[in-house]
Amino acid sequence: MREINVGLLGCGTVGTGVARLLLGQRELISSRLGAVLNLKRVADLDLTRDRGVRFAEGVLVADARQVVDEPGIDIIVEMIGGEGIARELILRAIANGRHVVTANKALIARHGNELFRAAAARQVDLYFEASVGGCMPIIKTLRESLVGNRISTMTGILNGTCNYILSRITDDGSTFADALAAAQREGYAEADPTLDVEGFDTAHKIAILSALAFGMTINLQDVYIEGISHITPMDIEFANQFGYRIKLLAISKHRGASVEARVHPTMIPFANMLSNVNGTLNAITVSGDAAGDLLLYGRGAGMLPTASAVVSDLVDLARNLLTGVSGRVPGLAFQMAHIRPIPITPIDDISTHYYFRFSALDQPGVLSTISGILGQHGISIQSVQQKGRKTNGTVPVVMLTHRAREAAVKQALGEISALEVVGAKPVLIRIEDDSLVD
Amino acid sequence: MREINVGLLGCGTVGTGVARLLLGQRELISSRLGAVLNLKRVADLDLTRDRGVRFAEGVLVADARQVVDEPGIDIIVEMIGGEGIARELILRAIANGRHVVTANKALIARHGNELFRAAAARQVDLYFEASVGGCMPIIKTLRESLVGNRISTMTGILNGTCNYILSRITDDGSTFADALAAAQREGYAEADPTLDVEGFDTAHKIAILSALAFGMTINLQDVYIEGISHITPMDIEFANQFGYRIKLLAISKHRGASVEARVHPTMIPFANMLSNVNGTLNAITVSGDAAGDLLLYGRGAGMLPTASAVVSDLVDLARNLLTGVSGRVPGLAFQMAHIRPIPITPIDDISTHYYFRFSALDQPGVLSTISGILGQHGISIQSVQQKGRKTNGTVPVVMLTHRAREAAVKQALGEISALEVVGAKPVLIRIEDDSLVD
Repeated sequence: MREINVGLLGCGTVGTGVARLLLGQRELISSRLGAVLNLKRVADLDLTRDRGVRFAEGVLVADARQVVDEPGIDIIVEMIGGEGIARELILRAIANGRHVVTANKALIARHGNELFRAAAARQVDLYFEASVGGCMPIIKTLRESLVGNRISTMTGILNGTCNYILSRITDDGSTFADALAAAQREGYAEADPTLDVEGFDTAHKIAILSALAFGMTINLQDVYIEGISHITPMDIEFANQFGYRIKLLAISKHRGASVEARVHPTMIPFANMLSNVNGTLNAITVSGDAAGDLLLYGRGAGMLPTASAVVSDLVDLARNLLTGVSGRVPGLAFQMAHIRPIPITPIDDISTHYYFRFSALDQPGVLSTISGILGQHGISIQSVQQKGRKTNGTVPVVMLTHRAREAAVKQALGEISALEVVGAKPVLIRIEDDSLVD
Repeated sequence: MREINVGLLGCGTVGTGVARLLLGQRELISSRLGAVLNLKRVADLDLTRDRGVRFAEGVLVADARQVVDEPGIDIIVEMIGGEGIARELILRAIANGRHVVTANKALIARHGNELFRAAAARQVDLYFEASVGGCMPIIKTLRESLVGNRISTMTGILNGTCNYILSRITDDGSTFADALAAAQREGYAEADPTLDVEGFDTAHKIAILSALAFGMTINLQDVYIEGISHITPMDIEFANQFGYRIKLLAISKHRGASVEARVHPTMIPFANMLSNVNGTLNAITVSGDAAGDLLLYGRGAGMLPTASAVVSDLVDLARNLLTGVSGRVPGLAFQMAHIRPIPITPIDDISTHYYFRFSALDQPGVLSTISGILGQHGISIQSVQQKGRKTNGTVPVVMLTHRAREAAVKQALGEISALEVVGAKPVLIRIEDDSLVD
């Protein structure tokens, strides 16, 4: 039986998962592929750690460059992470004519345009299913299954850490800080959780998916990013009363000649399937003009779910190698000549529904002052709740708006927060709810 | 730009959808594929009906055989349905060396083993993504994305008609007959609804998916099939009180050296995502040893969702044709030499949790008699509800059991229904709930 030789760079958590699958499921994979995926070389600086995987003599080496340059290797799997050495090694592998698999979303989001150009020029494939959504085949679905669809919208829960924290606040009323600490204890959040809780990881992912869905060059820079660290149990409770859950959503919409691509905490109605996605799970809805709404749901991270996606890429590339083909499916879903920059709408220019919470003195006339300012900016109110409960001598005034323009909202909130009768900075949370009247 | 010529057999609802996508999204598909998918010929007996699609002169013809034999056609799309002429035309297309796409689940479920052998012998591909789950890429996911996984379980809502009817009974307490009539009015059920409501359509689909997941020859004959026509609002209401929804599930589990493959109304807990799949929507959960649980959710039927899946197959085959490759991914997910018969467990040998409803006379001792008989057959009761509400002079006695063997359950129910104090035939509904204690 023919063998396809794999060189694995980096044997941390996911790398170890890939090694475990290639070794443990070797027969199973062969029975589907019709060839052996042979883990020929594994490069990691740590040669002694017990990974629970037994490599044959000589497989584990310290020098990744040596693996990238080794003549007998067919496919390089980059599991090092980061943007320095990983980028250099991938470019070197491409220059050597090797196909490459990576799960490195930060790298693809920041340097993908360069990497895919290099791969196309050298006629090799760069695959990255594991970079978004763990085991969920969202990249294959966009690239292959929805190939006959004009895609209009994607809405996803793409970061398990944030979803765990928000689920925790929802379930037991924890503060953000306590929920984060719990996530760290459970191993769901890093010691420095910034990349996750501030929304950057989610932004990497939606930048990649937007390119695949719309045929645009990858543009991370213009994605609007807002994290979850300001979300309070009080807002989650109000959301609940209005029939909403708060989720950190990645939203991408192709509208006219531009794309809305944004990451922020979002209220979604209970009837939206995404509102039932709890804990560390991920999900994404894609709307195509033929397929309608399609949802994928599963484990977005973790050793084996991520390794499952890496192995699917490896088998795809192995099938190409067995038949002497490359570039069968273009890396970014569209032929290179059809990929063009599409502007991302500045956040001030979007228009959506909003939830506001003001801390107002419990005085007659406050509500009319606030709604007067909103009215002057063309923002009309869909519903108001003024609670009797005092917080620091103020009462929370909660409003849902009809569709309004973000720039107007910001101006109005600026004026309102300057009022003497309004306390702390107003809270703004965007709403995605197709059932709301505009 | 290169052209791949498509011959479409049958231009009914889905066939028209395929034509609409190939014509309307021609540029979009080309920008992804790098070639033109050209709808060269369409065969349908009805040459005059207005389908809302404008074919060029000479494209629409009456004779399907002529299209199958036409030298310039690269891929044949079979959208005729049924098992007679469709089978004959597919075999003829294969014999002519044409690749074939079909959405014909009945045909694949009943004649798939023969068809895939013929395709392999002639080194052509037979693709069938649209046969299961409409726009959901469940076949590609099993065949490609989960290629590194040992798949253990699949649980799906795969028939929109049944799901609409059950959702309707759940929402407004309709009887089955009224809900069916509503489904027929809405165009969600056929005039003769047998194929859908008696579970046969769902069985076709789970027979196909079981082959793909487990590497078994397609075996429709041994799938246990029970429809939904006996489901009453009363049982749906009791289910609700226990925290369950009733769905027509397709269940397939690989256990040891055999497979459980069954279709029947099933109680699933609210926390199961499938319980939130309502109306005509479909969903399926697949459990792999690396990926964990992965769920797909979307439109399982309809003109354009189904056409979306057909076009994804067409593009896959076109990519193969452009690179001169066939058999890149084996039709049934495993290499032919690895596909073997795996026995399906007889329904009497399965063991699961059960819901029973007895109509019992409201007399002292009835409950102890019933539970005594259950006990004699080794069936232990998890919970009981005896309602005071009389129906025809009897009260409903409802029970949930610990895990029990189906054969024992049937014997016990036979004995119980023979009691003078028990009225009409007892109701049995199987439960899938991982949280229950066995």
